[in-house]
Amino acid sequence: MPSIFTRIVEGEIPSYKVAEDDRFLAFLDINPLAEGHTLVVPKQEIDYLFDLPPDLLGDLMKFTQKVALAMDRVFDCERIGVSVIGLEVPHAHVHLIPIKGIFDMDFSQPKMNFTAEQFETVAQKIRENII
Amino acid sequence: MPSIFTRIVEGEIPSYKVAEDDRFLAFLDINPLAEGHTLVVPKQEIDYLFDLPPDLLGDLMKFTQKVALAMDRVFDCERIGVSVIGLEVPHAHVHLIPIKGIFDMDFSQPKMNFTAEQFETVAQKIRENII
Repeated sequence: MPSIFTRIVEGEIPSYKVAEDDRFLAFLDINPLAEGHTLVVPKQEIDYLFDLPPDLLGDLMKFTQKVALAMDRVFDCERIGVSVIGLEVPHAHVHLIPIKGIFDMDFSQPKMNFTAEQFETVAQKIRENII
Repeated sequence: MPSIFTRIVEGEIPSYKVAEDDRFLAFLDINPLAEGHTLVVPKQEIDYLFDLPPDLLGDLMKFTQKVALAMDRVFDCERIGVSVIGLEVPHAHVHLIPIKGIFDMDFSQPKMNFTAEQFETVAQKIRENII
C-alpha cells in the first residue's frame, strides 16, 4: 500500500504545497508544532532516510535548504530546526520547524490548529520566498 | 573566538572521534540522550546549517549517512534520528541519536553519564563499522 506521503505526492490526498520538483516535495505539516512547520519528502517511497542513495540524500538536503531559507524570510524565528525521526510514517521525511528556543522541537508538545485558509496563506508566503 | 567545535576539530579540546575526513568530523556528544549520540560538524566554522554552501551541505549529509549506517549496525535501536537545532553552539552540527520511540529525541530529557572508557569503547565500535 502506498504511504500517505506517496498519496500526497500523487495528489490523491490534498496538501498545502510549498515547493516541488521532479524528485522532491515540500508541504505543510497539518499537525504543526509551529506556524510554517513543513515536511520535505523524496517522491521515491523509501522508508528510512539513510537508505536513500547518497546522491539523492545530498540533493534532498539542498532542496530542503531552499525551503528553509524561504521560511527564514517569512517567520519571526531564530532559525529553522531540522528533525528526522521517521517512526510515524514509513516514508522518509524531514521536519522543518521555525524555532525560537532549544526546546521548540519537542514532539510531545501539543500541536497547533489552523484553518484551511490560514494554512494556504502560510504555504503561499513560503512559496513566494523561495529563490 | 573559535567555537568549541573548532577547538575540537583542531585537537585543542579532546573528543571521542567517530569519523573524520578533510571537511567533516563526527564525534560523541558528551552529554548524550542515548548511548552512541554523535555530533557531525563541518570543519569550516559556519554557525547556521542552512548557511553552508549547498554542495558542502549535501556532502555533509552523505558523510553523516556513513556514520548513521555504522551506528545502526552497533546499537539496538529502531533507527538513527536526526536533529539540528543549532541554538546551543554557533557552529553547525547534526545530532545523530539511536532511537526506539518517537519521543527519544526530546532534548529536555536528562542526559546520560558514561565513563571515559565507556565513551571510547562506543566510539571505537562505531569507527569499526563504517564502510
